[in-house]
Amino acid sequence: MKYEFTPSKYFFTFGPNPPVLEISSGDTVVTTTVDARGFDSFGTLVPEEKTQRSKNTIFRNRNPLVGPFFIRGADIGDTLAVSIERIVLNRETAWSRVQPNFGSFTEEELGKKLLLNEPLEERYFQWTLDLKNNIGIIELPRSRKKKLEIPLHPFIGSIGVAPRFGRIETSLTPGEYGGNMDSPETKEGTTMYFPVFVKGAYLSFGDVHAAQGDGEICGVALETSAEVTLRINVVKGKIIDWPRLEDKEYIMVAGNSKPLMEAFKIAHVELIDWLVSEYGFEKWEALQILSQVGTCRVGNVVDPKYNVVAKFPKKYLP
Amino acid sequence: MKYEFTPSKYFFTFGPNPPVLEISSGDTVVTTTVDARGFDSFGTLVPEEKTQRSKNTIFRNRNPLVGPFFIRGADIGDTLAVSIERIVLNRETAWSRVQPNFGSFTEEELGKKLLLNEPLEERYFQWTLDLKNNIGIIELPRSRKKKLEIPLHPFIGSIGVAPRFGRIETSLTPGEYGGNMDSPETKEGTTMYFPVFVKGAYLSFGDVHAAQGDGEICGVALETSAEVTLRINVVKGKIIDWPRLEDKEYIMVAGNSKPLMEAFKIAHVELIDWLVSEYGFEKWEALQILSQVGTCRVGNVVDPKYNVVAKFPKKYLP
Amino acid sequence: MKYEFTPSKYFFTFGPNPPVLEISSGDTVVTTTVDARGFDSFGTLVPEEKTQRSKNTIFRNRNPLVGPFFIRGADIGDTLAVSIERIVLNRETAWSRVQPNFGSFTEEELGKKLLLNEPLEERYFQWTLDLKNNIGIIELPRSRKKKLEIPLHPFIGSIGVAPRFGRIETSLTPGEYGGNMDSPETKEGTTMYFPVFVKGAYLSFGDVHAAQGDGEICGVALETSAEVTLRINVVKGKIIDWPRLEDKEYIMVAGNSKPLMEAFKIAHVELIDWLVSEYGFEKWEALQILSQVGTCRVGNVVDPKYNVVAKFPKKYLP
Amino acid sequence: MKYEFTPSKYFFTFGPNPPVLEISSGDTVVTTTVDARGFDSFGTLVPEEKTQRSKNTIFRNRNPLVGPFFIRGADIGDTLAVSIERIVLNRETAWSRVQPNFGSFTEEELGKKLLLNEPLEERYFQWTLDLKNNIGIIELPRSRKKKLEIPLHPFIGSIGVAPRFGRIETSLTPGEYGGNMDSPETKEGTTMYFPVFVKGAYLSFGDVHAAQGDGEICGVALETSAEVTLRINVVKGKIIDWPRLEDKEYIMVAGNSKPLMEAFKIAHVELIDWLVSEYGFEKWEALQILSQVGTCRVGNVVDPKYNVVAKFPKKYLP
Repeated sequence: MKYEFTPSKYFFTFGPNPPVLEISSGDTVVTTTVDARGFDSFGTLVPEEKTQRSKNTIFRNRNPLVGPFFIRGADIGDTLAVSIERIVLNRETAWSRVQPNFGSFTEEELGKKLLLNEPLEERYFQWTLDLKNNIGIIELPRSRKKKLEIPLHPFIGSIGVAPRFGRIETSLTPGEYGGNMDSPETKEGTTMYFPVFVKGAYLSFGDVHAAQGDGEICGVALETSAEVTLRINVVKGKIIDWPRLEDKEYIMVAGNSKPLMEAFKIAHVELIDWLVSEYGFEKWEALQILSQVGTCRVGNVVDPKYNVVAKFPKKYLP
Repeated sequence: MKYEFTPSKYFFTFGPNPPVLEISSGDTVVTTTVDARGFDSFGTLVPEEKTQRSKNTIFRNRNPLVGPFFIRGADIGDTLAVSIERIVLNRETAWSRVQPNFGSFTEEELGKKLLLNEPLEERYFQWTLDLKNNIGIIELPRSRKKKLEIPLHPFIGSIGVAPRFGRIETSLTPGEYGGNMDSPETKEGTTMYFPVFVKGAYLSFGDVHAAQGDGEICGVALETSAEVTLRINVVKGKIIDWPRLEDKEYIMVAGNSKPLMEAFKIAHVELIDWLVSEYGFEKWEALQILSQVGTCRVGNVVDPKYNVVAKFPKKYLP
Repeated sequence: MKYEFTPSKYFFTFGPNPPVLEISSGDTVVTTTVDARGFDSFGTLVPEEKTQRSKNTIFRNRNPLVGPFFIRGADIGDTLAVSIERIVLNRETAWSRVQPNFGSFTEEELGKKLLLNEPLEERYFQWTLDLKNNIGIIELPRSRKKKLEIPLHPFIGSIGVAPRFGRIETSLTPGEYGGNMDSPETKEGTTMYFPVFVKGAYLSFGDVHAAQGDGEICGVALETSAEVTLRINVVKGKIIDWPRLEDKEYIMVAGNSKPLMEAFKIAHVELIDWLVSEYGFEKWEALQILSQVGTCRVGNVVDPKYNVVAKFPKKYLP
Repeated sequence: MKYEFTPSKYFFTFGPNPPVLEISSGDTVVTTTVDARGFDSFGTLVPEEKTQRSKNTIFRNRNPLVGPFFIRGADIGDTLAVSIERIVLNRETAWSRVQPNFGSFTEEELGKKLLLNEPLEERYFQWTLDLKNNIGIIELPRSRKKKLEIPLHPFIGSIGVAPRFGRIETSLTPGEYGGNMDSPETKEGTTMYFPVFVKGAYLSFGDVHAAQGDGEICGVALETSAEVTLRINVVKGKIIDWPRLEDKEYIMVAGNSKPLMEAFKIAHVELIDWLVSEYGFEKWEALQILSQVGTCRVGNVVDPKYNVVAKFPKKYLP
């Protein structure tokens, strides 16, 4: 079944929040996401009453998520397959910025005080999106190069299921459940696999980026809104420990952790497990081949947990 | 007011769970904690119906916590002062162990796969607690030294408030809200200060250790049960960012993060802030003095976030 | 001038060892390298008397280097430009292996003891190099996929100058001076720029890899021998702090450090410096552009220092 | 034999530099060290001709070392025991400072660019040493507390032997050979054990600190000069991998590495090895006891490699 879903509620956490829709394995959802600060395709801010709120606590109103979608038949110990069928940018602007205590070459994560240096100054960057030609344009008034055009490659910054142990975290944190991985690999044509930790899976997503470099080093990408089409399937009785991805060329695993080396290790060890358990490689031969043909991509090094995606070319699978 | 509180419910998360008791600033609570696996002073396991449960998710039933205690008048932006007046061990045994994929010299944290080595073997260690003489005794059948007696120094392994952003995590994770810091500094005579992130603060605690070395390197301490007496006060309008501690000799800050160096930085930078904002030190003079007289203590390097406590001797305060 | 140089001496360190040849800016050197264990194009081990030796110390006889080449006119504060004009594999085999305490998913670096796990078992892998078709072939007797063919992409694993402060290190360690970076970017067609720390620069190189994945995760690549053609130029009065690289598509910087995140930071901050000082970008605009179009590549995460290469596409330069 | 040795040459590197004196196992050396910038007990700077120099390279003239002392009979595979019999401060001043890109809460290590923040300002601090009362005094003109007196606890900041593989590094870097560990444990009454990597061992030392807090967080301690008395013994045929220390209360191991957690692991795993190989503990029982009674001390988190000393109380040895 195909659902055209118009969000009326946005959450700032991954977890078993009240579902916005129940769907079944095999269904498709077409919906729209807002940007990381909550602006929609018209540049209108989502009104506060449509966002997750609590009068007794402080919410960090970043990365509003569409969902959670409750998937009927998804049980603990299953795997949720989410095919990203389409990502269509629906706005002609994107923003980016430099923030005082955020980004890879200062204190990295908001709320940490690690330095005695004065904080960075705030800078806001406006990008124009030429959707017809799939190009992002920025003016650089203070540089010799005054204007730059870059190709867009839209992807979903935040996508995941309810985390293990029923915990609920800010949508800025990625983990075993996916989340705010900010990996350019979560793009149109990729199928993602998530572990189902909670009955119903509780799939949520948002924070589409029109383009981004490796590591998301300034802390943000070309932040914008989009229409997203996802097809969801439940793989019964299949247990995985970390998000897996697949496109035409690669099988991939996402490791989300800190320090960076731990994210790197998680992604690669899980990928070796995958090669062994599903493709019949012996453990040390899998390590050898991955050592010589594997590539990896650093998604973000700014969020509360970093992201590394380890990639194995499908052409070497049996 | 002084409450003698008998727990009838244990939670596995820090956060705004349904409060077990409402108290006011200035009140004292006397209660009992169970050990990290849920065994009480009689060696009886807490029955499952008394623990946090959900039929739709998997709970990690470790570190059952007493609480949360809702503190009337504690608002966002206040500080909660918790004086540890007494910790009385109430059982003559404690356990410890080596686990296959847990501990500082293997994969550290459960649920991470970082290594291709075979996992460690499981080993269980039984300690006898001579409460009269405050001594822990262990048999070491495979070593030249056949028996060892060590002094006990009981402390609360897990103590904290509801975290920022309303998130709820496993009780194994420490953070800005305190939590499973496993620091020997959270002992009798110490007053802890927590940021109030949620109205009511939602204080929870448990996981008393009879003794522990720096870093909790095998992954666990002398795990046991205890009677704990805490006096709680609300400091209105005082904002702190990380847990602070104070005993007769030191003011201290706990940094809970990964990698270890980040926990170290957080603890020290917040301690410098404290010296500047409350004790009138100029920033660089505070750094200089802390550089020359400060000490620090590594609480744990095995939990999902590590703990470092930075210490400044009170005798150097104005 | 073009030198056809036949090595008669191999060093295991980067530094001001007795030069094997003096050349001038603009000269080209054609020479041959041996593999990481010292085997040449005939599969013959370099005799011990041709390697750096000392009767009073232990040398780690890994990564024998050709050179050092003393470059006339290269002074402290200059930059040495080394164009990799050709890398021709000259042997039909390469080896790889798994070692007990070496590699990304065990203790990483030889000589460190970080784990209580039993070490990995030793495994040796033989690759056949089909030089005509530029293909590497491996038999995988224990896997379902019995044989694999991969494209070769030869590069120089170890290349660098004498380090700062006159120190001499094992050739296994990369640093500001280049060294054993094990980055696939040091390939035919790339020009490398090294800071000149010592009069004469003392260029050395070796350890050609026929192919390798990102991170060199098992600890070694397709280790083999090669004929290498380098053109050397001195850029007078130009100071750089870390190795820079340039090919047809990218300007790049290599960061060599530990932890991995520090290598990442070094590479990117130096690349921003480059964009600002030579291409007229304002600092925050440089950060913004690099954030959105930059890519990075992890060279090794197994050597005493790790390697990250940050890349900026030349098409966005003014 | 007891040597009263007056230095006429200072080196900036650990390694097989030309020995200043040959001694035998059992000998004692009394000599004087200068401070980290080269000032002696009279506040006079060591003239450049008395320091290690090279016209072809840049030396970083920090931490001038006395030595190397060639120890007759010390061969590869032996252990060098160095008893610190006396450290007598011989100057009534010490200095400390804040440097722009150095210290734990900014870029840590000189020569790394990790941040986009503006560097810290430079600040110089003068300490008066009251040697009679063993007190250090500092004026704090900008703080409410105007003056502070702290007890002195002199120790040797840099002490080590020639490193493995014949490499020579700046004296600012610690490693398996000891070096600039900046650990307060290298104090009067401590015996240090170093692996002999090079025939003759080549013991060097300097950089006495009058006092220092854990981590040496601002980058420097109370930097001063001293008279030092060391007794040297060769332990034949005993192989150790990292520096070991022993005083009246503890056996200890120093781990020198980066990241901080790696230094922590090295120190503790080597200490477990020591407990097993010399004191008859079974491996897992050793881990259990160290987990419960071990302490550790962070020496520095500012040098090119950090220092952690793991400590085991002697009273628990058989």
